[in-house]
Amino acid sequence: MELFYAYEVSGGRCYLDAEESGHCVRVLRHRAGDALDVIDGLGTLYRCTLEDPSPKAAVARIEKAEPGWGARPCRLTIGCCPTKNNERFEWMVEKATEVGVECIAPLIGDRSERKVYKPERARRIALSATKQSLKARIPEVPEPQRVKDFIQAGPEGALKLIAYCFEDPSAPRVSIQEELEAYEGADVIVLIGPEGDFSPEEVRLALAAGYKPVHLGPSRLRTETAALTAAMAVYFRYFFLHLSFGKQ
Amino acid sequence: MELFYAYEVSGGRCYLDAEESGHCVRVLRHRAGDALDVIDGLGTLYRCTLEDPSPKAAVARIEKAEPGWGARPCRLTIGCCPTKNNERFEWMVEKATEVGVECIAPLIGDRSERKVYKPERARRIALSATKQSLKARIPEVPEPQRVKDFIQAGPEGALKLIAYCFEDPSAPRVSIQEELEAYEGADVIVLIGPEGDFSPEEVRLALAAGYKPVHLGPSRLRTETAALTAAMAVYFRYFFLHLSFGKQ
Repeated sequence: MELFYAYEVSGGRCYLDAEESGHCVRVLRHRAGDALDVIDGLGTLYRCTLEDPSPKAAVARIEKAEPGWGARPCRLTIGCCPTKNNERFEWMVEKATEVGVECIAPLIGDRSERKVYKPERARRIALSATKQSLKARIPEVPEPQRVKDFIQAGPEGALKLIAYCFEDPSAPRVSIQEELEAYEGADVIVLIGPEGDFSPEEVRLALAAGYKPVHLGPSRLRTETAALTAAMAVYFRYFFLHLSFGKQ
Repeated sequence: MELFYAYEVSGGRCYLDAEESGHCVRVLRHRAGDALDVIDGLGTLYRCTLEDPSPKAAVARIEKAEPGWGARPCRLTIGCCPTKNNERFEWMVEKATEVGVECIAPLIGDRSERKVYKPERARRIALSATKQSLKARIPEVPEPQRVKDFIQAGPEGALKLIAYCFEDPSAPRVSIQEELEAYEGADVIVLIGPEGDFSPEEVRLALAAGYKPVHLGPSRLRTETAALTAAMAVYFRYFFLHLSFGKQ
């Protein structure tokens, strides 16, 4: 199965940009009348017929819309401080998208070595991984914000978790598995710090804002591996349960 | 905590190669008499005192040996067909090492686009990730072998799993989680195919050799993500249980 991304959906048509059109028409040699599966990146799959096979601006007619296609039973937000090496963060964006995530928020922490982050490349990677892993909704990668601002802005009702490395006898940590198993909702936020960890002040603010401290197991993990481990914990906790084998 | 790797341990001494010595003496500026933690890559941590701070051939005297340091309660072997893009496979080697794996065997399948694989770089990455994630045993990355040969050579008593994508009504698949939870041993082998999947003949041979077919959840995962997802399933199944919080 091959998915295409429409930058615009209107008037019963899906409009592909130059890159998607070229891939569809030049590389895969689709012709007018071919069936196409097109996502809008917001959660809907459109079953389409290719109408205008322009290699720069292809247009497909919508035959059927499937809202919520490939959607998962948990909304996961990962707030993560980008790594010094951009590729490591972008790799995590790809992998977290594959196993399922709603939002990956780049955060700047007190101890972040990377104080500036441009999300454009990560957004393109998220789009590509969304299509590759057969989902209709592209994870959001918002502009970077400070850890402290992100903590204050968190929504009500979500399970809020913070993973950090330093010892804090006043806040004993259980495993992320245990917290996920005890939670019956479907909104999870996980905070992952930079290479130098969160500052004690950031952890204090997070705990005051309702974040629960968790650990990610016995290994010392790199920042990007920690973020992916959290995504995997959610994948195993939520997504396996709802699996209709062989449906996709 | 910083670990060094000794290429040789003998006569109560750990011997560091030029790269480790340079890092120890030039970069971290260790001096004679400093305490050093040195691994042999085979599973033992040596608590040492730096004796000869040569930046090309440092020697440390062993004060205490801790066999099995950082060892995990499950021996996981991943047999995985290297990806067309070497970096993707090497990335998986790094991440699987971080969460814990004993052996990553590069395999050549009937449908492998990559027919040749040189494991030297992956071995260096495995060493680096072993030190970074605080383990004493470096995962083995053997020379590549054919999928069919690997299947025939599997050990007795292990839980043998094969993940593939095509539909096979004669062999319904359960999730890797379910198979791991039903297994009480500590030797797990997981087979992950190339981009083009295993051939039906390879799957048939594997099933005949006692491999159980599993799925890795509802997402369509890239080869390297599938291999890491298997490693994560083992990490969550085995390693969290034995966690003494705050010990490391």
